[in-house]
Amino acid sequence: MKLGTKHNGSRDGQLMVVSRDLTRCIEADPKIPTLQSALDSWDSHQSLLQECYQRLNDNSSLGTPTHEVRWMAPLPRAYEWIDGSSYIHHIVLVRKARNAEPPKTLRTDPLIYQGGSGVLLGHKDDVVLRDTAWGCDFESEVAVILGDTPQNTTKDEAHKYVRLLCLVNDVSLRNLIPAELEKGFGFFQSKPASGFSPFVVTPDELGTYWKEGRIHLPLVTHLNDALFGDPNAGPEMHFSFFELIAHITKTRAYTAGTILGSGTVSNEDRARGSSCLAERRMIEIIDNGVATTPFLQHGDRVRIEMKNERGESIFGVIEQKIVPPKA
Amino acid sequence: MKLGTKHNGSRDGQLMVVSRDLTRCIEADPKIPTLQSALDSWDSHQSLLQECYQRLNDNSSLGTPTHEVRWMAPLPRAYEWIDGSSYIHHIVLVRKARNAEPPKTLRTDPLIYQGGSGVLLGHKDDVVLRDTAWGCDFESEVAVILGDTPQNTTKDEAHKYVRLLCLVNDVSLRNLIPAELEKGFGFFQSKPASGFSPFVVTPDELGTYWKEGRIHLPLVTHLNDALFGDPNAGPEMHFSFFELIAHITKTRAYTAGTILGSGTVSNEDRARGSSCLAERRMIEIIDNGVATTPFLQHGDRVRIEMKNERGESIFGVIEQKIVPPKA
Repeated sequence: MKLGTKHNGSRDGQLMVVSRDLTRCIEADPKIPTLQSALDSWDSHQSLLQECYQRLNDNSSLGTPTHEVRWMAPLPRAYEWIDGSSYIHHIVLVRKARNAEPPKTLRTDPLIYQGGSGVLLGHKDDVVLRDTAWGCDFESEVAVILGDTPQNTTKDEAHKYVRLLCLVNDVSLRNLIPAELEKGFGFFQSKPASGFSPFVVTPDELGTYWKEGRIHLPLVTHLNDALFGDPNAGPEMHFSFFELIAHITKTRAYTAGTILGSGTVSNEDRARGSSCLAERRMIEIIDNGVATTPFLQHGDRVRIEMKNERGESIFGVIEQKIVPPKA
Repeated sequence: MKLGTKHNGSRDGQLMVVSRDLTRCIEADPKIPTLQSALDSWDSHQSLLQECYQRLNDNSSLGTPTHEVRWMAPLPRAYEWIDGSSYIHHIVLVRKARNAEPPKTLRTDPLIYQGGSGVLLGHKDDVVLRDTAWGCDFESEVAVILGDTPQNTTKDEAHKYVRLLCLVNDVSLRNLIPAELEKGFGFFQSKPASGFSPFVVTPDELGTYWKEGRIHLPLVTHLNDALFGDPNAGPEMHFSFFELIAHITKTRAYTAGTILGSGTVSNEDRARGSSCLAERRMIEIIDNGVATTPFLQHGDRVRIEMKNERGESIFGVIEQKIVPPKA
């Protein structure tokens, strides 16, 4: 099943059921006005949504074209946005570039941070950047949306709480990070609002590509129409989503609608490129002693998408432009 | 105006208008079922709530007794919970105890972290502690609840976005903190669900005690019926709430219902005691080389309250007990 949130002037938008091929959509049952309301009562609403999805796929005359709809983030505001850093190659690369050893617990204790979740950007929402000196970067990621998840969930039970999957652009302000991390309390100003794919899908939509808590497909990033990277999100995700869920539930529980990200997708094979500017800049530093790729400038465009083996888009496309604030 | 959220079996509870003396309450207008809905449309709902509050205060036969109601956290789940650390004495004390210098930016750049906000505890909800070796501590704080707050809000404009004030018990797991901060991404497992005062109040309820973005009243903490501390939350709050708002809006905007905490209230005068165990333990270490006050054990009870000069409770009482998980 595929779902999206239509902009209708309200804060949380209108829940839409979207056809498998992403071409058409219809409003969900009036009892389920928003994606949060669907997640809040998933067990009772799931079959209603599923029937609607089936009807839409079976009858190509049903629904309105998705390209006529303005899509918000699937959850325009969420109760939590938690982001892991599960691709070890990304961490090792960044450390190597500054001649630092990776942390000793790199492979045993997930790196994770709590992000801001009150304002989340739609797939075509501009990234408003006040100061290009902040070093704006994209980070292409995959994410899961959880149902109510109890404290002390084990890795083996975690699959039960994964309701939906999506893509994320975790916007980062690289030049604000060192001073913030120096203070010891983690990211804050350095992590502005993240952008989301227009559509979220249930795990069954990925078939065998969803395996052991990982999505085994390339995540494709373009910068200004040039391919920037297409690393596979599966094999090198050191901590699976199931392990990340076990980690975050050690001391507390989560409400339905909590979004959990994978961290920047990264492969050891350099031919797969990168999912963020920082990584390419680090490779330049390692190779040539100096980074030549600049951070994002006003006017730059970032495009993030994931396709199946038949070349069909699964989640739709994140296409964000970097812009200055309106005068 | 004073408001609270009644447990009615739903996730977000029922918004109640509460009398100034906290003895009686009535359901808010059906158009405003929850506190979040009130905050989402504050400009249009405020006068309706205010009229109801006036009626309740003017007619002592109106409403039901508040002690017969089970109160949830005012926002049982919030879109963001952001916590500052604005009392310099608290930071300096903790650093001194481990022979470290305070950070150079201590007085110019606020310490702040993003907390989990999807599950917030009511004033009498137990703190479920799986392992007492985690070093469970309370932190008595004051907090503001914001309306929609734009990016780049200045200190001078910030007052416009403060809708409500409340008290918080920011539960912390001290022995999990060092390993988490070592990884550089801030707190996560070390910050389980926080507890909230039953009632939130508009700033005018504090009269002249609310001044320049600070609450100038003692915050009183009891541990197992013994007074633990009563530091004044006003004069030594180095960064006011207005300065904290300017800090957090540098790179992003916030949705209505965002909760922003002050950090552990702390005064230089030792006679005022402390608002957390860690601080008392640090004083013991400085004085005697060793901490003798233990962290919280199962069965311990924490009580947090703020009264005006006439001894009247402003926000009601946080009274939480530390318990093991149910078998």
